[in-house]
Amino acid sequence: MTEEAARLSEQHLARAALTYLAEPGDPALGALLETCEPAEVLAAIKANLLPQTGQGGTARRALERALGRWRTRLPGLPGELGRVCADGIRLTCPGDPEWPGGLDELGPARPYALWLRGRADLRETCLRSVSMVGSRAASGYGAHVAGEIAADLGDQGWVIVSGGAYGIDAAAHRGALAGRSATIAVLACGVDYPYPAGHANLFAEIAEDGLVVSEWPPGRHPARLRFLIRNRVIAALTRGTVIVEAGERSGALNTARHAAQLGRPLMAVPGPVTSAQSAGCHRIIREWGATCVTRAADIIEMLSPIGASEAPTSAPGQASPRDELDTDSARVLDALPARGGAGPSTIAAEAGVDLDTVLRCLGLLAGSGFIERCDRGWRLRKP
Amino acid sequence: MTEEAARLSEQHLARAALTYLAEPGDPALGALLETCEPAEVLAAIKANLLPQTGQGGTARRALERALGRWRTRLPGLPGELGRVCADGIRLTCPGDPEWPGGLDELGPARPYALWLRGRADLRETCLRSVSMVGSRAASGYGAHVAGEIAADLGDQGWVIVSGGAYGIDAAAHRGALAGRSATIAVLACGVDYPYPAGHANLFAEIAEDGLVVSEWPPGRHPARLRFLIRNRVIAALTRGTVIVEAGERSGALNTARHAAQLGRPLMAVPGPVTSAQSAGCHRIIREWGATCVTRAADIIEMLSPIGASEAPTSAPGQASPRDELDTDSARVLDALPARGGAGPSTIAAEAGVDLDTVLRCLGLLAGSGFIERCDRGWRLRKP
Repeated sequence: MTEEAARLSEQHLARAALTYLAEPGDPALGALLETCEPAEVLAAIKANLLPQTGQGGTARRALERALGRWRTRLPGLPGELGRVCADGIRLTCPGDPEWPGGLDELGPARPYALWLRGRADLRETCLRSVSMVGSRAASGYGAHVAGEIAADLGDQGWVIVSGGAYGIDAAAHRGALAGRSATIAVLACGVDYPYPAGHANLFAEIAEDGLVVSEWPPGRHPARLRFLIRNRVIAALTRGTVIVEAGERSGALNTARHAAQLGRPLMAVPGPVTSAQSAGCHRIIREWGATCVTRAADIIEMLSPIGASEAPTSAPGQASPRDELDTDSARVLDALPARGGAGPSTIAAEAGVDLDTVLRCLGLLAGSGFIERCDRGWRLRKP
Repeated sequence: MTEEAARLSEQHLARAALTYLAEPGDPALGALLETCEPAEVLAAIKANLLPQTGQGGTARRALERALGRWRTRLPGLPGELGRVCADGIRLTCPGDPEWPGGLDELGPARPYALWLRGRADLRETCLRSVSMVGSRAASGYGAHVAGEIAADLGDQGWVIVSGGAYGIDAAAHRGALAGRSATIAVLACGVDYPYPAGHANLFAEIAEDGLVVSEWPPGRHPARLRFLIRNRVIAALTRGTVIVEAGERSGALNTARHAAQLGRPLMAVPGPVTSAQSAGCHRIIREWGATCVTRAADIIEMLSPIGASEAPTSAPGQASPRDELDTDSARVLDALPARGGAGPSTIAAEAGVDLDTVLRCLGLLAGSGFIERCDRGWRLRKP
């Protein structure tokens, strides 16, 4: 094992431990992780000694209180965190090749790490994904429409991300599976915790080709506030969010707000104005500017391919239009991060093609003016 | 009879005759009426001699062809046009106190005149009006929702304007009547022509407190193209347009386009995405920016009171806020035309209050900075 691998592994284990000690989205921990290494933060918690952050006064006292909060959970920390990652449960952390870049747009509120159940690559699976969420108390209409649209999206290669709840969430997951597409359930409890209990089989089915994802460590039970905290991850993992049914006070509107705040396309499916389950959808169309969508094609139109806006527009002799690219080149182009650069092996992992193909496509894409070399490898060329 | 009254009367009779000779919206006649008096145009048609318009070439030849077209209908012109206005049928023309100013925004496409059945004042009735139109083949859902919303709007003093057709139109008219409100049916045939035949009783009921309106002269039968030409009048008479149900090719979308072109608020009521009757509504919400409305309150919010934007904003010592006006003053202020001025008796007729009250309120409104004197009486003061 190289020194680098050992260092990464230590930071992974530290982040795993932090998911046991702090609630996701804790602003104190988010702020600490902006400046300190996870292992340093974990050591500080264990030693009951704050690291030097340069902060004083109120901020320092808030950190001290947080430290006390996190320390109360130290007795529950598993002795060997590595053992948790048995039984098909994995961990991915910021900076990993599998870590979806979209999560970093959450800033200090980004997850400390994500627990995964399933073998699919999280980042790759999220590249062409859309979240579809809605009311637990869905109407027959809402469940039908969610299932149909999700199946159509799946048929066309789009991955559905949802919250694994009864109602619209379940209809969306099941529709995606019916459309022979991978789907991702983002839970507000451990990925091994069957909540709702009636969805134990559904989660097992989702994990076969897709993923069950959570910020909470295995074994952790759900709680009311956790669903709301979880919602920002659903919005941030995907290119856009579709609300199928939502009452006026539905938690789905919280996910919708996160999508809007992240600048991702927000869409809503209308329904009968006589149905309370559609009232939230109609309100966000009217007041938040959510796009009124009625079928998969409307949704796909809203979710332009990654890189499409960054790619140069067609100009004779400069660049050939994106539409004319072969499938491999298009996948390689899609795999390039929206910001910064990436090396060929990272791109290969993200595009799901072998290294030789990536190297051939990178040459083609650079020759066509889509990408250029940079310190970190290759990056999208500004128009 | 004064000379002025005789002249007006001559122009009225000329316009009445023109509604027999030309189809509404004929661009040739619209252009002629921009520069010539109606009586002059009628005389030219009868004499088969174009007036001097200063136009030559192609435009002149188009006018000559139009003249031939209009002359073919001369044999059908009633001998005594004054007699047509018996049996509760009236005529109103541009420039009349009863002529709604909103129609003039149609430019050369404004109606030559409007035939009316019913005693209500057209302009006054349209002051707080909204058009509600939709599919003839309405679903039970659409008819129910149109009726409920129209009744609620009627309850709150809003007049429903619609097209008198089966389906959504009929549900809107009936809802307004149920809400004890006047309603206006704009037909694509003579106001005495019962089309559809099954609505003969509905039209009679509408004419009791409201109006049946048409650009076509009494006795004229409907035709396919006439419904489309008629739609611009529905949009122009009202402060905004609500589409309740419309298939992808519904004529209601034509009315919607007119409303949008006139810059009036365009609204649509959503429905199940599984219903073809709501597909047009969802499309104009998504693509035309129509506002998604689900109840009367949403619609009223979109239709700010006439004069609200013209009235001066509150500034200390200059004007008191509109909200603080007493009921009579607010009605008088509402009755002032958006452009130009009006005399106290016209204002009294439009506001539905007596002359003494108008005179008292005018003084109050002028003192508060809302209005000012002008050549024609009183007008709204620019902010």
